[in-house]
Amino acid sequence: MTAPRTMTRAPVRAASVTHVASSLLTVQTGGAGFLDITGEAAKFIAEAKAQDGALTLFVRHTSASLTIQENADPTVLIDLATVLNRLAPENAGWAHDTEGPDDMPAHVKAMLTATSLQIPVLQGRLALGTWQGIYLIEHRRRPHRREIVLQFLGTTR
Amino acid sequence: MTAPRTMTRAPVRAASVTHVASSLLTVQTGGAGFLDITGEAAKFIAEAKAQDGALTLFVRHTSASLTIQENADPTVLIDLATVLNRLAPENAGWAHDTEGPDDMPAHVKAMLTATSLQIPVLQGRLALGTWQGIYLIEHRRRPHRREIVLQFLGTTR
Amino acid sequence: MTAPRTMTRAPVRAASVTHVASSLLTVQTGGAGFLDITGEAAKFIAEAKAQDGALTLFVRHTSASLTIQENADPTVLIDLATVLNRLAPENAGWAHDTEGPDDMPAHVKAMLTATSLQIPVLQGRLALGTWQGIYLIEHRRRPHRREIVLQFLGTTR
Repeated sequence: MTAPRTMTRAPVRAASVTHVASSLLTVQTGGAGFLDITGEAAKFIAEAKAQDGALTLFVRHTSASLTIQENADPTVLIDLATVLNRLAPENAGWAHDTEGPDDMPAHVKAMLTATSLQIPVLQGRLALGTWQGIYLIEHRRRPHRREIVLQFLGTTR
Repeated sequence: MTAPRTMTRAPVRAASVTHVASSLLTVQTGGAGFLDITGEAAKFIAEAKAQDGALTLFVRHTSASLTIQENADPTVLIDLATVLNRLAPENAGWAHDTEGPDDMPAHVKAMLTATSLQIPVLQGRLALGTWQGIYLIEHRRRPHRREIVLQFLGTTR
Repeated sequence: MTAPRTMTRAPVRAASVTHVASSLLTVQTGGAGFLDITGEAAKFIAEAKAQDGALTLFVRHTSASLTIQENADPTVLIDLATVLNRLAPENAGWAHDTEGPDDMPAHVKAMLTATSLQIPVLQGRLALGTWQGIYLIEHRRRPHRREIVLQFLGTTR
């Protein structure tokens, strides 16, 4: 399982004293689905005058979560939703069913994706790959108001 | 999949020079199950005099893991365990079976949940949502002694 | 689900002003499989003269991902691949199929594992457990050139 490969690593770039900047992003979702929040993350990085360090995103809920996924073809998101629905279907005899048939599936989907994400910031820019977008995933059927903490730790301009 | 929404973001709060504080949390588990370690994380943050920054939790094992989940109704944890058992059943013809029938399922469950988590700390408090608890998940049947590194990076009081 | 336990926590070790060091690791994969990158991460930590803090690893792709898993018995990795293939089989009627039958399964596998990981560094060493290795998982059939950002935030020697 550890196939032949070549690895190269660029020289270490070290920088001086680090700072912290935080902000709360509030998102009104429109019900179940993937919401691209990459632009908001980039705006925060710019406003914080971030130079080198890492952006942490943290969703303050257990029925919504985060993922980094392809931002090009929207059918990718449709398939990802299909998989999550298959792994956590409604009406599957859940013990926890007092908050509606879509609540326990939402918790399962949150557990299998991410509550916190870190993205390096290099020379003032998020080090995302070309095809990577940051998504908030709303797992409940109805619209919800979701809070995401954005935090940068690193050097500033 | 990117439903209509409204986003608002609070002003950036920036703070001065950051420090690092670390501690090792040792947990004796009672066999498979979810253990709430939120209180220990909060105590560490208080002792470290953390102000603004992020807490990293890192579990030093591959058959136990971490998740942030609902802390209100304990049936949520029962359902989450059911899902993990369904995704990684015992006696499913695993190639790796020398350490007992519950060992390979434990590795799978660890891969599908989290080995590391980051939680922002804002003004001296963990930025968890009201219903969020931090859980160590023991995936092995028998009790184990588990080590979790707690680390705060940020400003201090 | 919250079985009896004992918890002990070591005294907080606090350290002074933190810095950031970054590097890009480029890995040529040999097709689908797990690649151990622990050695490269350790070399980076040494070159960066890291003392106390955290290493962030971030993969800049959505069809490759990261996991921390057992480094002893290679059959563990075989079973993990089996599970991922079962959760995201090829030719399963994916809506997104223009980039080949292994592309959408790769996105699903990436979502269910990790795009970013944090590993504490304590007294100059990665705080990995004895049996923990850091793996890049190539989810595509063919060899790919993958980029991983390595970043250390913390105190230096």
